This record gives sequence, C-alpha cells and structure tokens, in this order.
Amino acid sequence: SASQDLDLGILETVMGQLDASRIRENLRELSREPHLSSTPRDEELVQLLLQRWRDAESGLDSAETFEYEVLLSLPSQEQPNSVTVVDPTGNILFSCRRSEENVTGEQEGPDVVPPYAAYAPPGTPQGLLVYANQGSEEDFKELQNRGIRLEGTIALTRYGGVGRGAKAVNAAKHGVAGVLVYTDPSDINDGQSSPSQTFPYSWGLPPSGVERGSYLEYFGDPLTPYLPANPSSFRLDPANASGFPPIPAQPIGFEDAKVLLCNLQGASAPETWQGALGCEYRLGPGFRSDGNFSADSQVNVSVHNRLELRNSSNVLGIIRGAVEPDRYVLYGNHRDSWVHGAVDPSSGTAVLLEVTRALGTLLKKGTWRPRRSVIFGSWGAEEFGLIGSTEFTEEFFSKLQERTVAYINVDISVFANVSLRAQGTPPIQSVVFTAAKQIPAPGRSSLSIYDNWIQYSNRSSPVYGLVPSLGTLGAGSDYAPFIHFLGISSMDLAYTYDRSKTSARIYPTYHTAFDTFGYVDNFVDPGFSSHQAVSRVVGNVLLRLSDSLFLPLNVSDYSETLRSFLQAAQQDLGALLEQHSISLGPLVAAVDKFEGAAAALDERISELQKGTPDPLQVRMLNDQLMLLERSFLNSRAFPEERYYSHVLWAPRTGSVATFPGLANACSAAMNTAPGSAAWAEVQRQLSIVVAAVEAAAATLRPVADL
Amino acid sequence: SASQDLDLGILETVMGQLDASRIRENLRELSREPHLSSTPRDEELVQLLLQRWRDAESGLDSAETFEYEVLLSLPSQEQPNSVTVVDPTGNILFSCRRSEENVTGEQEGPDVVPPYAAYAPPGTPQGLLVYANQGSEEDFKELQNRGIRLEGTIALTRYGGVGRGAKAVNAAKHGVAGVLVYTDPSDINDGQSSPSQTFPYSWGLPPSGVERGSYLEYFGDPLTPYLPANPSSFRLDPANASGFPPIPAQPIGFEDAKVLLCNLQGASAPETWQGALGCEYRLGPGFRSDGNFSADSQVNVSVHNRLELRNSSNVLGIIRGAVEPDRYVLYGNHRDSWVHGAVDPSSGTAVLLEVTRALGTLLKKGTWRPRRSVIFGSWGAEEFGLIGSTEFTEEFFSKLQERTVAYINVDISVFANVSLRAQGTPPIQSVVFTAAKQIPAPGRSSLSIYDNWIQYSNRSSPVYGLVPSLGTLGAGSDYAPFIHFLGISSMDLAYTYDRSKTSARIYPTYHTAFDTFGYVDNFVDPGFSSHQAVSRVVGNVLLRLSDSLFLPLNVSDYSETLRSFLQAAQQDLGALLEQHSISLGPLVAAVDKFEGAAAALDERISELQKGTPDPLQVRMLNDQLMLLERSFLNSRAFPEERYYSHVLWAPRTGSVATFPGLANACSAAMNTAPGSAAWAEVQRQLSIVVAAVEAAAATLRPVADL
Ligand SMILES: [Ca+2]
Ligand SMILES: [Ca+2]
Ligand SMILES: [Zn+2]
Ligand SMILES: [Zn+2]
Ligand SMILES: [Zn+2]
Ligand SMILES: [Zn+2]
Repeated sequence: SASQDLDLGILETVMGQLDASRIRENLRELSREPHLSSTPRDEELVQLLLQRWRDAESGLDSAETFEYEVLLSLPSQEQPNSVTVVDPTGNILFSCRRSEENVTGEQEGPDVVPPYAAYAPPGTPQGLLVYANQGSEEDFKELQNRGIRLEGTIALTRYGGVGRGAKAVNAAKHGVAGVLVYTDPSDINDGQSSPSQTFPYSWGLPPSGVERGSYLEYFGDPLTPYLPANPSSFRLDPANASGFPPIPAQPIGFEDAKVLLCNLQGASAPETWQGALGCEYRLGPGFRSDGNFSADSQVNVSVHNRLELRNSSNVLGIIRGAVEPDRYVLYGNHRDSWVHGAVDPSSGTAVLLEVTRALGTLLKKGTWRPRRSVIFGSWGAEEFGLIGSTEFTEEFFSKLQERTVAYINVDISVFANVSLRAQGTPPIQSVVFTAAKQIPAPGRSSLSIYDNWIQYSNRSSPVYGLVPSLGTLGAGSDYAPFIHFLGISSMDLAYTYDRSKTSARIYPTYHTAFDTFGYVDNFVDPGFSSHQAVSRVVGNVLLRLSDSLFLPLNVSDYSETLRSFLQAAQQDLGALLEQHSISLGPLVAAVDKFEGAAAALDERISELQKGTPDPLQVRMLNDQLMLLERSFLNSRAFPEERYYSHVLWAPRTGSVATFPGLANACSAAMNTAPGSAAWAEVQRQLSIVVAAVEAAAATLRPVADL
Repeated sequence: SASQDLDLGILETVMGQLDASRIRENLRELSREPHLSSTPRDEELVQLLLQRWRDAESGLDSAETFEYEVLLSLPSQEQPNSVTVVDPTGNILFSCRRSEENVTGEQEGPDVVPPYAAYAPPGTPQGLLVYANQGSEEDFKELQNRGIRLEGTIALTRYGGVGRGAKAVNAAKHGVAGVLVYTDPSDINDGQSSPSQTFPYSWGLPPSGVERGSYLEYFGDPLTPYLPANPSSFRLDPANASGFPPIPAQPIGFEDAKVLLCNLQGASAPETWQGALGCEYRLGPGFRSDGNFSADSQVNVSVHNRLELRNSSNVLGIIRGAVEPDRYVLYGNHRDSWVHGAVDPSSGTAVLLEVTRALGTLLKKGTWRPRRSVIFGSWGAEEFGLIGSTEFTEEFFSKLQERTVAYINVDISVFANVSLRAQGTPPIQSVVFTAAKQIPAPGRSSLSIYDNWIQYSNRSSPVYGLVPSLGTLGAGSDYAPFIHFLGISSMDLAYTYDRSKTSARIYPTYHTAFDTFGYVDNFVDPGFSSHQAVSRVVGNVLLRLSDSLFLPLNVSDYSETLRSFLQAAQQDLGALLEQHSISLGPLVAAVDKFEGAAAALDERISELQKGTPDPLQVRMLNDQLMLLERSFLNSRAFPEERYYSHVLWAPRTGSVATFPGLANACSAAMNTAPGSAAWAEVQRQLSIVVAAVEAAAATLRPVADL
C-alpha cells in the first residue's frame, strides 16, 4: 500500500540473519585467486555475482552485466619493470625485487601482477638518486632551496602526504627523470620492519611488500571523460588524454628502499623526513663513497607499462520497489583487486553478498519487498581509477540524478576490528547513527556500535553535543562519482582501527600480495564479527532508506556544516576578503535562509508524521529531501576539476575547512595584486557558493513558494 | 483529492470568459506610454501587474517582484547618435533622421528612445560606403571576391538573413569600421514604400521607421553568465565580457537608406541583393560623381551608446496547486518594449492579464484550484537579450529543472489575424492540437483553429498524416533559457500571417515607434478576435497541463523527430561519415531503443487509464514524461554556446535538418584531413547524441529497469 513504512520486524529479521561465517566463506571464495580487473578470474567473479543474484531462493529480481571498454595500464610480461643501481660502466650493482617474497605460497604465480605504478609511462630514466620525502610540492621546493640539483635525478619518495600521481607530477616540474615510491615502516608498521615482526607473524607489512596503485590524476576511464565507455563511444587519442603521470614511476618495498636510502650521501634529511629503516636518511644526490655503491653510481628505473583497452564489467542487481519503484537506494562496491584483495575489496564484497542473500531470501519467500527499488552494484576497474562506477554514472546520468535517494559504498569493510568509521554528507548522519545505536558492538556486547564508536572518534556538535565524527568524502572509492558528479547523498562505511594503538596510513598489506584470506582470518578480523557488524549497519541503513515512508535524510544537518564553513571563512579569510572589498554578507544571508528553511521543513515533517499523511504529500516532501544534495551542484564551478561539481565537497587545498572553491581561489589570489584575475575568481567563487546555498534553501522552502 | 483530473466544465467556463474587449483595454493601458526596460513606465507596469495579480477578486495566490541589476546599453541623451555624409573638408552634406517622423503624435517625446543598436560600442568611424546586402559571411566574401577593399569602410546592410550582431561581427572580420542596418521595403512592406501606402494608411512601415534591437551575441545579462544578476553577484569587467558587437553600428530607416544606397557607385549588386528602394543597388565603395554627393564623400557613423547597470524586475505570480503543488506549469512573457510596444510585447501581456483574470476569478470564488501549481512570469529586459527570464532560470535552476512540467511563452500574441502559429518541442504538439481543435477560428466560426491552421501551414507526418506544422524553438523570445538551458518542454504561441499574402520578415512596425495601440486596433487585429483566440489556446493548454491527471505530454512524438534527424544524417552525412570510418550504427540502435521505449510507455499509460490508477503510479509516470526533455541536456556538449545544453535544439549552421552538434562538427571537419581534431570532434558529437538518446530511452523504460 502507498503508506508502506519500515517494518521493524523485518529489520530485526535481517539483523539476525546476517551471518559472520557466511561472510567468511564469501571472502574465502572471493579472495581465493588474484582478480585484477578484466582478467579471467575477474570475469569468473562476475559470473559468481550473477549466479548469487539470480539464485531462485536468495537472489534479487534481476541481475545483469554492463560491459565497458576502458583503458587500463599493465606491466609488460616480456619486459619486467626493474629498478637497479648501476656503475658508470653499466654494471648492475643492485637490483630491486621484481615480486614480493613468497611467504605463504600465494605471492607467486602467473596471476600475481608484479608491483607497478599503473599509468606511469614507459621509459628507462637513469640518474643520481635523491630522497624527496613524500614528493609533495613543498618537499621538492625544500630540496631546491637547499641547492640540490634535481634535473635528471631519480627521486625516491615514500607513500603518504599527497596522492600517488601527484608525486610524479611534482617531481617532473623540477626536472626529475623518474620516481620511486616505497612504504616506510614508520608509516605502515608503527616502525616494525623485520620479517619476524611482520606477516605471517603479525598483520605488519613484510619487507618485500609493495603497494601497487593507480597513478592517474582523474577518475573514470581516461579516454572517455563524461561519456560512457561503450565500444562505439568516442575515445580520446591517448596522446591527447590528460591525467597520466608525466614521468616513469615504480613502487618498491622497504627492503629495497633501505638499500637505496641508507646508502645516500649528502645532507641529512629534515627530522620529519626521517623514517624507520634504521639509518639516517640523507638527501643525495648520489651514493656515499663509503657505502655499498661507488659514489658515481646511478639508479636506473625501467618501466615498460602498456596502455590497453580492456573489457570491464559492472554487475547490477535490482530489487524492484513495491510502492515507489522509481526511487533508488544504491549500494555498491568494486570487485577488482590488485592481487588477492582479501581486504580490498573482497571484505566489502563478502558483506555485499551476505546482505543481498539475507534480503533476497526474504524477497523470494514473499515476506518482504521494499517500498523503493534497491540497486546493488559490483563495479569493475576501481583500482585503476573508479572506472566502472564512473562509467555507470555517465551512462545513467539523468535517471540516477532524478531518482536516487542515496548511495552506500562499502569497499574495505574491515580495516581493523575496533570501531565503526563512516564518511558521508550531512543528510546521512542521522540514519547511520540510528542504525549504529541498534546494533551491538562486536566483542563488546554490552555496548552498541554507536557507543563504541563515540569512544574512538567524536566531536562536539553545536546541535547535538558529543557525537561520533562523520568523515567527509574524498575520492578514495566508488562513492566519488555519485557525490561529486551526480550530487547524490553518499556514504562509505567500514570498521577501523584504534588510532591510539597504530599510526598506520592504512592496513599494512594494502595493495600488496599479502592481502590474503589468511591475513584477514588471522589478523584483521578473526571470527568475522566486525564484518558482521558492518553488514548489519549497512543492512539497517539500507532498509531504513528503502522502506521508511519518510526518507531518513536529515537535511537540517547541513545547517551545521554550512555554519561551520561560514565561520571558518569569516575567521580565516574574512580580513583578507575585506581588504579586497569582498563582503561575506550575501553568504551569511544565504546560510541564514538555509537554516530557516531547513528548520521549517523539519517542523512540517513532524506535523505530517503526527497524522496519516497523504501519499503524494509524503512523496513531495521526500523529493525535497532527496533533491537537496543536487541543489549544491554546479557543473561550471570547477571546469579544471573533472567530474567535481558539488560546491561544498570539491577538493580543497589549504587548511581552512570552508567552501572549497572560495578557499582555493583565495589561496591562488593571496599574493596577486588587487584587481587581478585571481581576485575576480574569488568573487566568482563566492557568488557560486551563494547561489548554491540560496538554491538549496529554495529547494527546502514550501514547494509553492519561489 | 489525489485523483483530481481536468474538469471540462471549468475549461469551458474559462474559454467563455476570455474576453476580446478586456484584452483590448489591457493593451490600451499597457501600450499607452513607451516602457523601455527599467524606465519609470516599466516600473509602473510592474506595479500594474502586481496590482492585478494581487486583486482580491481576480488575483492569484501571491505575486512578487524579483529585481536584478543588469547591464543595459542606452543611447546618450547629450550626444545623439548620428549618420551623416561628409565631404573631404568636413562639410555635412546629408544627415539621417535622429528620430522617426511623428505621424500619429506618439513618435515624439522624452520616452521615445531614439533608434540605436543596443550594445554597439561607441565610436565615430568614417569611411567610404559599401553595400553589403544582409551582412552575412557570404555577403562580405562576395564583396572581397569582387576586389572591393573593405578596410575602413562603412557597410550598409539590410535586416534579415543573419542576426543583428552577426552583421557587425562579420563586417569587422573584413576590417569594416562601422555598420548601418536598414529595413528594405521589399523585406517588410512587400515592396511598398511611399508614405501614403504605409502606416497610418496601412499596416506598412513608414519610410522613417527604424527597427531597434539588441546586437548582443548571447542572451542573459552579459556580466553574469550562469549566475543570477543579484546586486551582490560577481560581475565580469565589461572589458572582459563577450558577445558585444566589435564595431559601432546604427540602424536607419529606408527613407535615409535610399539616399545612401541610390547614390552609390561601383558595380551593380547581384540580383538577390536588389531591393525596393526604386534604384539599382550598387556596391560602392563610395558615391557616384553624378549623384547627390561628391565621389570623395564619406559616411560618418557616430555612436555614443553607453553601458549602464540598471535595475530590472520580473514579476512572478503563483497559483498553488491543490494536489501536486511541487509541479509547475510556467506561463510568461516579457513586459519591456522598445517604444510603445503594442504588438511586441504588449499584445502578449494583454493576453496574459486576461488569462490570469479569468483563472484568478475562479480561484478567488473557490470554484477552482489547479492540480499543479501555475507560475506566471512578466519578464524584464527581454529586448536587451532575454535578460529577465535568463536570470530567473539561473536563480532557480535546480528547482525549476526538477519541478517544471512545461513553459508556455506568448510574446507577440498576434502578428496578424490569419492563423495560429505554434513553436515547441515534440511533447507539446498533441496538447496544442487538442486545444486548437476545441476553439473556433476567429472570423471563420465554422472552422476550428486547428482546421484553419492546417490550411495555412502543414506537413505530412509519417505517424499522423497531414497535420499543422509545429515550428522549432530558436532564441527569439523568453522560452530560450527554459528549453536550451533547463531542458523544459516549451512552446511559443501566436496568431500570424497568411504567408501567401505577404513576405514581410515580421509585422512591419516591429521595434519602431509606430508599434502603437492604434496600429493594432486598426490593422493588426481589429476587434481583437485573434487576441481572444490566442488567449483561449493558451488557457486551454495551460489548464490541460496544470489539471490533467496524466500529463498531456506526448513523449512518443519525439520518435518522429529523432527518426527524421537520423534519416537526414544518413542521407546527407552518411557517405561523408563512412569515408572517415564513422558509423551511424550506434545512433540507429539508440533511436530504435527510444522508439520502442516510447511506444511501450504509451501502452502502459493506456492500460493505466482504463482503471483507477494509484496516485503514486500516476505521479511516477508523469515524472517520466516531465523529465524526458531533461535527458537530452548535456551541459558539456557545446562549451562555446552559452546556455545551449539541449542536444537536439542547439543552434545549427548548414541546411541538413539533423542533430545540431553532429551537423556543425561535420561542417567544420568537411575540409580538414582525416584524423584531424575536427574529425575527432565529429565523433565526440556523435557519441554525445547517442548517449543523450540512450539516456532518453532509459528515462522512458519501466522505472525499475536500468
Ligand atoms: Ca567515461
Ligand atoms: Ca546572469
Ligand atoms: Zn578498494
Ligand atoms: Zn584499492
Ligand atoms: Zn518580444
Ligand atoms: Zn522585441
């Protein structure tokens, strides 16, 4: 019936049926073999998903694949990439490993892709080695300021600080010829670096472990920006495509990095550049004469990556809504991994399959059908740059934008087994909180997930007091095209670390051949209770979004964000803006208007909920809630930032937590003359934000007002 | 109730109450004084509209003004523009009139703006005169090919062929220093040119009449593209704004043009360049020695136009919908005129006021409230470039896009009193036909408007057989931002000429000081029965859109358009594309898919209409109908074409009636080498169209399918 609402009995049933051991079995199967995007095993997993989602007893209404032809970057099998130290006569003094050490029998074999930097161009640069810390702009400037000649060098950098591709971009600006990237034990292992202290003896990264990854600057298939990568689609000539690293790059393990770094000559690196390799880090250029190599030895980086058009599939499964089939709740994760990908992404896919099994079972029994449609996505080629999900949003741009209530992403479902971590836009905070309060925390059965969470990560909200911290959404997983390109309220859910116990950048075997089922089973989440907890949170949030008569999107939680962005702008940019006669007054007025409209809408919802509201009234109100996020989109705000259209969540440089367009424009204008084009851009960005906030307020006002 | 449907009794009542004499009285008041944008009389009319729309007995639910600060261009009062013939010593041999002849007592006075070319830059170029026909690119090339030196000349052009601003743009490319534009009697008066043959003795344009107009290239406030021109909004420096004519320009009457043109020396102009001024048109440069002027005389064009930021208001009136207040039917017209503007735009505003009076009366009586909301707009500053309506669409971009069912525009309601003329996108064809069949044709009471219309303008539809021709929407009035920028199904309605009786470009006194109440009352529509007919068509269409349970948007009529665009592409571009290995196959497949989805949707609607459909089911289906037009939008398709985002209706050069992006890209690529960037753009444009048609088909498919 048109008044179908959330059934708490069904919710309880689903919570009860989500099963840790089934998730464990899913994970075992999913991570049994490496399943790099578009390989035969990836295709086998496509079939596995189809089979599960088409199962007569526990499947969905329908499931199908959507194949795209996308540009991947793969290392050459014939010509392996290499990193060597060579003396002036060309003798090889040292070679970095070409693959990880086979410590569990799973690190070898034809399907284990050797470590490489996807999309780094082929080339064989050779030069003196320098150490460039994290490869940030400041890092290279620091080297330059110290008079170190960077032209023609090979820069050794460590992961962290800036994105992978940015290290190569920054390096190339200074004439660096090639980039090496390694993971320092201080950044991943809390300093531990010996084989006996690392996997398989702990969750630590073994010395030979190498983080693979995409070095693309943009997300989505690089040859088809803004168009779905169908076989017939227009493709850029790769020579005209943008976003590839400008110079060859190669990742290495810390075992090899140590040999290179601990033999460098030159001045000591700054304190903050030091790491846990057990030597003093020096800057170079070149090796010290009393070390393993002669002082005139150079480092040779040979990269033979190749760009290839490959077929990559998304699998989409649908449960048709009973009442409002044209309203979609989306829930997805990528399927492709770098190697076995037990944590990334299979811990998420194992949860996804358990959630669809539990819901599918109720569906096939006839016990339940959601009010709204639910669409499940298994995305391809995420590791290469969120490609499958981006192509999906490009192909179905209009209808997804018009009809989607929210997007739930669970990529890595369990980083560690300590606390929930949620990222998302403000409207989803309340539904995540509600779900988290309803579910016991794994291993702490007297506490709810919420009560546990607030102990590990919290903030003081001016509205609610102490609450768990909801993180913001960058572009780290497939939610990016949904929030930034389509303006759909999105979230990313996972279990994570106790940050007082580890400072690891991410779980240690991330993107290495050590991210295996045994790793998860023994170290990440023995017993799989955290996986189960995540499946329950997701299931709970999903059911609330799909089944509640009134959408559980609390749009007035945007008021707090807007207010805090505004205050940051006033405090940190206000004086500067005033100097240039730019007033924040219109922005203050717009935020006030938003706050008023949101509060009034909350009132109206409360009023309506007291009676038996007319289905059309509820629909109209829900449309306001659903479409609020869309009102913050401006496809012309950031023409240089591919896909980023959300005026509040576009990438922000600088430390002021405020409107990104305004912050970035201020940074760029800071040292220019009054009246410069950069200052005009500040005013333009301010007007864009004002217009967006005004439009958001207009969306929330009573619908027959302008 | 949620099933509220169109009430045919109400429809009949409204048809009966729309009154010709009230429209006549409206027009008398509206056109009593000149009401150029942002002048005191324009502001008085704002108050008149507010008063009418707030009337206790015949007003709307609410009405308010929205003021923008926009850049207008006005002639200097201190330094009038002038066009003179001067001899080498600087003696003035001839001066063009500075104002029109005061034939009815209404052509003089402080509020009659002298003829000028809005946005033409100030300057006082002087040079030999050339005749450049319509000032098209081909026209100037023809002169160049004939060896006529254009550098430093003054080009005399006639209205027609290309837009106003384009004449100056084309001229400047050839080094021309100034442009004159006149209206040839052959283009406006069917050749008649003597005072006794023209107004006030006929509807013809008097010899002194001058067409004013905007010479802007883009529409919308020139300083705030894509942002509402609120006082605090970011504004471009006018020096950085684009779209202004590059050289001074000035319009003149044919009385003065005759003196200039009939004294030119040089070769005879081509046959098609000849007109009705009673002499042989020659090309120049310069005057013949046996005429009125010495051969070395030059023409001086002195333009002193000034850019000014002025306040311009829109008036918005709202009738709140009873059932779906968040669905809007928009109906608007501009309010500002060049002089008295009896035809343009007051004939439309007179109709608008009569329609709102009739509906408001029923509303205030409590007899009627529409199912959906109706928003009435009186736009400001249209004559300067659709400025008010564009700012409105910029300010309310998201909510208008999400909620608007259709936009109805009636600018000039009666060009002439012979036949209906309708322009619009395919989904509105059927509702206009239905309305036109229900209303008697003025002066031919045995015929319906439809039956009369089909006699004057028809085409053979592959689906329906002989039907009246629905024109397409360019950018001639305020519908432009609605269809091109927001993708809202739009229409423009008017009564018009018998094209077998006149070849006039437009009604003769267009944009002159002769467009007065007496002109309309005596020559355009004595008795106002055509005005009444238009008010009935509008009222009928509006009520059907606002009140029908199922939206009367026939989306399957887009199949015919897509099919004909496709066939034109195949026939006229297919061979060329094939030579460059570009296949239309994916487009064929997309159009087939659209056709199938539209036909299936029609089936579903028929099925639903047989029963008593659930209100939510109807709403979902209506959303598909409403949002279809949006699926053809691509804000990145034509980055050079400001506001144009509709993939089917963007401006098209060339004669092949097909997808504009594809056609334009083919024209540009035609003479380039295979593999050029221009050919890549052809492929990109083809992919954009395919993606749009695929998205449109996806919008029409059952909502729980992808
Ligand atoms: Ca793409
Ligand atoms: Ca504007
Ligand atoms: Zn992942
Ligand atoms: Zn990953
Ligand atoms: Zn007009
Ligand atoms: Zn006009």
